[in-house]
Amino acid sequence: MIENQSICLAYETVEKADHSLPLLTPMSEVAGRMSVQEGARFLEKSQGGKGVLLGGVPGVRPAKVLILGGGIAGENAAQVAAGMGADVIVADINLARLRYLSETLPKNVKTLCASELRIKKELSDVDLVIGSVLIPGDKAPHLITRDMLQIMEPGTVLVDVAIDQGGCFETSHPTTHSDPIFVVDGIVHYAVANIPGAVPYTSTLALTNATLPYIIALATKGWQKACKADPALALGLNIVEGKVTYQAVAEVFDLAYEPVEL
Amino acid sequence: MIENQSICLAYETVEKADHSLPLLTPMSEVAGRMSVQEGARFLEKSQGGKGVLLGGVPGVRPAKVLILGGGIAGENAAQVAAGMGADVIVADINLARLRYLSETLPKNVKTLCASELRIKKELSDVDLVIGSVLIPGDKAPHLITRDMLQIMEPGTVLVDVAIDQGGCFETSHPTTHSDPIFVVDGIVHYAVANIPGAVPYTSTLALTNATLPYIIALATKGWQKACKADPALALGLNIVEGKVTYQAVAEVFDLAYEPVEL
Amino acid sequence: MIENQSICLAYETVEKADHSLPLLTPMSEVAGRMSVQEGARFLEKSQGGKGVLLGGVPGVRPAKVLILGGGIAGENAAQVAAGMGADVIVADINLARLRYLSETLPKNVKTLCASELRIKKELSDVDLVIGSVLIPGDKAPHLITRDMLQIMEPGTVLVDVAIDQGGCFETSHPTTHSDPIFVVDGIVHYAVANIPGAVPYTSTLALTNATLPYIIALATKGWQKACKADPALALGLNIVEGKVTYQAVAEVFDLAYEPVEL
Amino acid sequence: MIENQSICLAYETVEKADHSLPLLTPMSEVAGRMSVQEGARFLEKSQGGKGVLLGGVPGVRPAKVLILGGGIAGENAAQVAAGMGADVIVADINLARLRYLSETLPKNVKTLCASELRIKKELSDVDLVIGSVLIPGDKAPHLITRDMLQIMEPGTVLVDVAIDQGGCFETSHPTTHSDPIFVVDGIVHYAVANIPGAVPYTSTLALTNATLPYIIALATKGWQKACKADPALALGLNIVEGKVTYQAVAEVFDLAYEPVEL
Amino acid sequence: MIENQSICLAYETVEKADHSLPLLTPMSEVAGRMSVQEGARFLEKSQGGKGVLLGGVPGVRPAKVLILGGGIAGENAAQVAAGMGADVIVADINLARLRYLSETLPKNVKTLCASELRIKKELSDVDLVIGSVLIPGDKAPHLITRDMLQIMEPGTVLVDVAIDQGGCFETSHPTTHSDPIFVVDGIVHYAVANIPGAVPYTSTLALTNATLPYIIALATKGWQKACKADPALALGLNIVEGKVTYQAVAEVFDLAYEPVEL
Amino acid sequence: MIENQSICLAYETVEKADHSLPLLTPMSEVAGRMSVQEGARFLEKSQGGKGVLLGGVPGVRPAKVLILGGGIAGENAAQVAAGMGADVIVADINLARLRYLSETLPKNVKTLCASELRIKKELSDVDLVIGSVLIPGDKAPHLITRDMLQIMEPGTVLVDVAIDQGGCFETSHPTTHSDPIFVVDGIVHYAVANIPGAVPYTSTLALTNATLPYIIALATKGWQKACKADPALALGLNIVEGKVTYQAVAEVFDLAYEPVEL
Repeated sequence: MIENQSICLAYETVEKADHSLPLLTPMSEVAGRMSVQEGARFLEKSQGGKGVLLGGVPGVRPAKVLILGGGIAGENAAQVAAGMGADVIVADINLARLRYLSETLPKNVKTLCASELRIKKELSDVDLVIGSVLIPGDKAPHLITRDMLQIMEPGTVLVDVAIDQGGCFETSHPTTHSDPIFVVDGIVHYAVANIPGAVPYTSTLALTNATLPYIIALATKGWQKACKADPALALGLNIVEGKVTYQAVAEVFDLAYEPVEL
Repeated sequence: MIENQSICLAYETVEKADHSLPLLTPMSEVAGRMSVQEGARFLEKSQGGKGVLLGGVPGVRPAKVLILGGGIAGENAAQVAAGMGADVIVADINLARLRYLSETLPKNVKTLCASELRIKKELSDVDLVIGSVLIPGDKAPHLITRDMLQIMEPGTVLVDVAIDQGGCFETSHPTTHSDPIFVVDGIVHYAVANIPGAVPYTSTLALTNATLPYIIALATKGWQKACKADPALALGLNIVEGKVTYQAVAEVFDLAYEPVEL
Repeated sequence: MIENQSICLAYETVEKADHSLPLLTPMSEVAGRMSVQEGARFLEKSQGGKGVLLGGVPGVRPAKVLILGGGIAGENAAQVAAGMGADVIVADINLARLRYLSETLPKNVKTLCASELRIKKELSDVDLVIGSVLIPGDKAPHLITRDMLQIMEPGTVLVDVAIDQGGCFETSHPTTHSDPIFVVDGIVHYAVANIPGAVPYTSTLALTNATLPYIIALATKGWQKACKADPALALGLNIVEGKVTYQAVAEVFDLAYEPVEL
Repeated sequence: MIENQSICLAYETVEKADHSLPLLTPMSEVAGRMSVQEGARFLEKSQGGKGVLLGGVPGVRPAKVLILGGGIAGENAAQVAAGMGADVIVADINLARLRYLSETLPKNVKTLCASELRIKKELSDVDLVIGSVLIPGDKAPHLITRDMLQIMEPGTVLVDVAIDQGGCFETSHPTTHSDPIFVVDGIVHYAVANIPGAVPYTSTLALTNATLPYIIALATKGWQKACKADPALALGLNIVEGKVTYQAVAEVFDLAYEPVEL
Repeated sequence: MIENQSICLAYETVEKADHSLPLLTPMSEVAGRMSVQEGARFLEKSQGGKGVLLGGVPGVRPAKVLILGGGIAGENAAQVAAGMGADVIVADINLARLRYLSETLPKNVKTLCASELRIKKELSDVDLVIGSVLIPGDKAPHLITRDMLQIMEPGTVLVDVAIDQGGCFETSHPTTHSDPIFVVDGIVHYAVANIPGAVPYTSTLALTNATLPYIIALATKGWQKACKADPALALGLNIVEGKVTYQAVAEVFDLAYEPVEL
Repeated sequence: MIENQSICLAYETVEKADHSLPLLTPMSEVAGRMSVQEGARFLEKSQGGKGVLLGGVPGVRPAKVLILGGGIAGENAAQVAAGMGADVIVADINLARLRYLSETLPKNVKTLCASELRIKKELSDVDLVIGSVLIPGDKAPHLITRDMLQIMEPGTVLVDVAIDQGGCFETSHPTTHSDPIFVVDGIVHYAVANIPGAVPYTSTLALTNATLPYIIALATKGWQKACKADPALALGLNIVEGKVTYQAVAEVFDLAYEPVEL
């Protein structure tokens, strides 16, 4: 791309003033909602799980779902898990975010200020863990380590929504829709790298809803005017006429960084 | 009453065809709602409780409330406990009732088909237990025995709504609003015999709403016509002109029973 | 069973005065909730479905779910489908039931008085159809006939919860958890005969919650006293000491029928 | 106003840092809520509409309401339409806004990322369209053009909340409370220019709630100090001592613009 | 009808075992929902009302709506009024009914055990009164008498859903959709005799949903077998081969009554 | 502290860019929720109150709760009061805040744009008043003056959550958990200075959730780097090496102020 003098914009660095990433949000929404659907499926006995129904039935306890990370994906996972009748906990370290979630999510969602100790305490009777924590521009932290698998009951299901950033479980490695799971120490791991690919109808619409306004701006104004008019879009510029214009990318590849303003 | 030839109707034996007890229901509603309010109060540290806030706050777990019995009192207790944000379990052996409750109560109420084993499993981390089980015309069963107190953490609070029928905790004995609690093995017991007496404004209205139609019927038609016209009211007749007309009462006092129809 | 003089009680003929079937209800609840979970899974593109996410995401339409039959299974299916964010229609011919469902189900459930014409009108843009209609003691009616499959878009998913009674889609035939689906005219059919078998932990508890009281009655009182004390249980008697005591069974097998009272 | 040296503040240019217009918001709230009430009325057959009840009844489909624009007016319209039991779609191009609305509005509201194509697709079976899109400081866009009226069924009702800014339907022209509607190509148009005027009790309180703090500031501090202390109020200054201090106004009237700071 | 030997069934006497009237229920649902829509309209200042918006807006109080009677019509009125954001009170003398309504209606509905005194107390600040009380087979009671109009503020709106049974306000007389209201002592009366006629699309479907099963039974089995098979339908028989078979009708017209069984 | 050259950070001046006070928020949440629990308790007759149950029961009106101030404490008070079934009004002068509360709080909460006149109008039939208004860095305003006590009925309860800032009722003075109330003119005053102290388990977790990230930053980076990296924390610096670095504190104690940057 450097050689052929392309103008390259990266979806993941388009960033608004409030630090939201408008071109990643739609896939986080889809992945968050899908993660619970997939988790419910692999909780079925024939799939290797505990044989627990997410919502239980009247008189029988519902499944306990622990969602690590209350961002876009975690919020959407919580909506679906709660909607299916599970007993849901969303853990995050951002208290302001937990307050908002507690104001807007259904009443069968509890919020938890996350720490290693508290996560461990929840694992002994959990049925499904959704890992949706990521640190922007860095590898996802390992919130569930290998030794913590011992705390859980066999047949517990882990779904790693952060597998694209390395995964938030130590024992995760990427899988595919055709072979989605593997088992470590009796714990079922689901770590499909492209979860939204399972529902392309919904995902394509969701993604194009988000990208189209930027495409139109680029097509009608040209990249220079479009990026000048919209600082979020300008942050998406990674390579311009042979030069790396996004500092983190330059550093990773040990290339010279040149601010786009120049 | 037998001697002075009174016509005596008992509130507790007026009974509709669907087995509801229209003159007891209002006080069960008040007692059920009050029971959680009182339980929340005695969970305060200065009152002897664990120092736990029923609803927690975002990031901090809510209290766990176990309600034994899903009848009128239990349903009303669940409404208030759920409304205050607690994590609520209603246990009952009537599955059809649990289904109705799961359809109509807030989502932070779970239902549990009751058994001794399952109740024991819930006690180790419970904060508040509401006992609202009663067997019509019999002593309430002892759902929490003395040895089960050991399972609970010190400062756990028990509220016995069935104390008028002997109480549903083995260690219960009646108390009063001026001295409402006592502690056994570190567990706080609240067993005020007349809970609704604390809110006489509400209770009086609730009770007279239920009784007034019967009073008017008796006053305008006379007891004979009123009871003929309304089988529920007729079942309230306990003593008529010196004779015991309610079989269970006759048996308890070893008196002759004479059907009211005679 | 006739020869060895067994006393045989059938789960499916234990029937309460309100015509509810207490020993079938729990499996209907589980099957109803599972049906949507399975339907959501097979809507995934890689599973043969349309690639639609049940709840959509903000800005993208949710899937349309049509539930045929508003009984126990249909109500539970509607709860889960609505909880996952779908646009749900429950069709039934019982208006009183539809009224209750519209009072208690979430707001994204619409009710429809069923007729063949109206069902056909809904099929052209439906994503998932749950068939949960059965006629007690008879074969399920074929609500979706083969020619109606043409109305639906390819990748639409049909889940037949009534497959045990012959299925309520003309093109249904029983499948298994290891090979759950087949495709007819582009429409995915899921017709696992024992859906609750996928979640044995939940199903076993649900079923034993319902059966245990009857088991205890039979074990402690003997079958004769237990059946006398409980008319619902007495209806469960199908064979008694070599005689067929349930009329429908006698008729099907062309055997002599002897009322149990004799 | 220029000649008599007035100090003129315009409600519509008082603007907070978050671009909200505090003196217009209350009337948008009232108009949004009223728009559905008026739309429901003109859906009555005797008023020219389809004769459809907004919420349907159990067994009969509710009306379909399409709300164009998810701003203040659109959100309030959606609340009322959903509350009346309709099947509601809110269309907007702002995805972040749609996310918030999907978190906080009732479940019978769907969100749609707007485009001409998608709006057209919704029109063939819509019953009521609320147009509440406006571009600040510009004419409202024509979201429904004359030829699109053909797509709709006769008796469909259009309510144009943006009529003060020129209307967001091509065929709109302002009407009055005494003669509120007109019909074009079988489609009922409601385009009363001052909708909140129908409920002056509520509107006056709503408006004075918003204006009073500014009035008090002006009255106690004088306009100069009040505007210095509050940048939102300062933006309201349109004419100061004979000079036009709001650029857009100067341009429209081709007058000299002088920044208020001078 | 007697002379020409017709077989006459009356919609209003078809009655199920639970005393529900299946052929009147749909119109009660429509009328209940419409009553609030009409009430909201006539609360507009230009229509003679107080100029109050039913739901208020944030910071301004909502309208107060008093619904007299918690039957089908009253329940549906309460759903719509609450959905529009009003502060709603449902008054009834049936406590069991009020309990069900308080379990299933939105939280901005309060229930009130009705008495003349309590109704009077609510009138001084009420904005809209829906009268939906009727005594089966008798004239509706006058719950609001002429002198009680003095208690209300001018512009208060009364909607009389029971006008077909004589009306439940003393000052009511039937009106039409083309001239729906009249004013007595400053109070706006809406008493259209056939409210559902305004929404014929919805009403026709609602009514035929309810009647069609009976029509089919009559058409396929003949009236005699159909009425034998269904006691509810049999109660609908008013005139059979020249004889009056419904006692109340016979009495009103002073004709001989002959039980249909004969 | 000045003499011993301490580095002193004050919880109450740590302030984020959005003016939230992260170290005070948790205690406001606890106090807000507790305030209603305490208020409900003192509404009991035996505690001096009116004898009113907060949620009433079906057929009997709920208590009316007026919450002055819609900040963190007020919002949490409203959640609990609404959850207990009361008829709740939240009064505030910030319309944008009232809009958010009306979008997210239960439907039995009304919002009111506050003024002295309107508050007075609500007092005559109020049962419980929660005072939770404070002006940052200043004494709380006296929203209920002594003469306004006359408007209320004897046994009304006032809970002053702002007592630490001087109280928002003129007649408030601080009390303790062991002697929490006093009565003025028949009105019960609850003004415990440290409400969260009653539930130390919840309060400690809530507070340490908020403080721990700051403690860790201070411990690992040292105060200088930690404060440089986090402007919110830097605002917490009140005294640094003998100098007062927070202007308001310097002014109150008439000491020299030295900006921390120096």
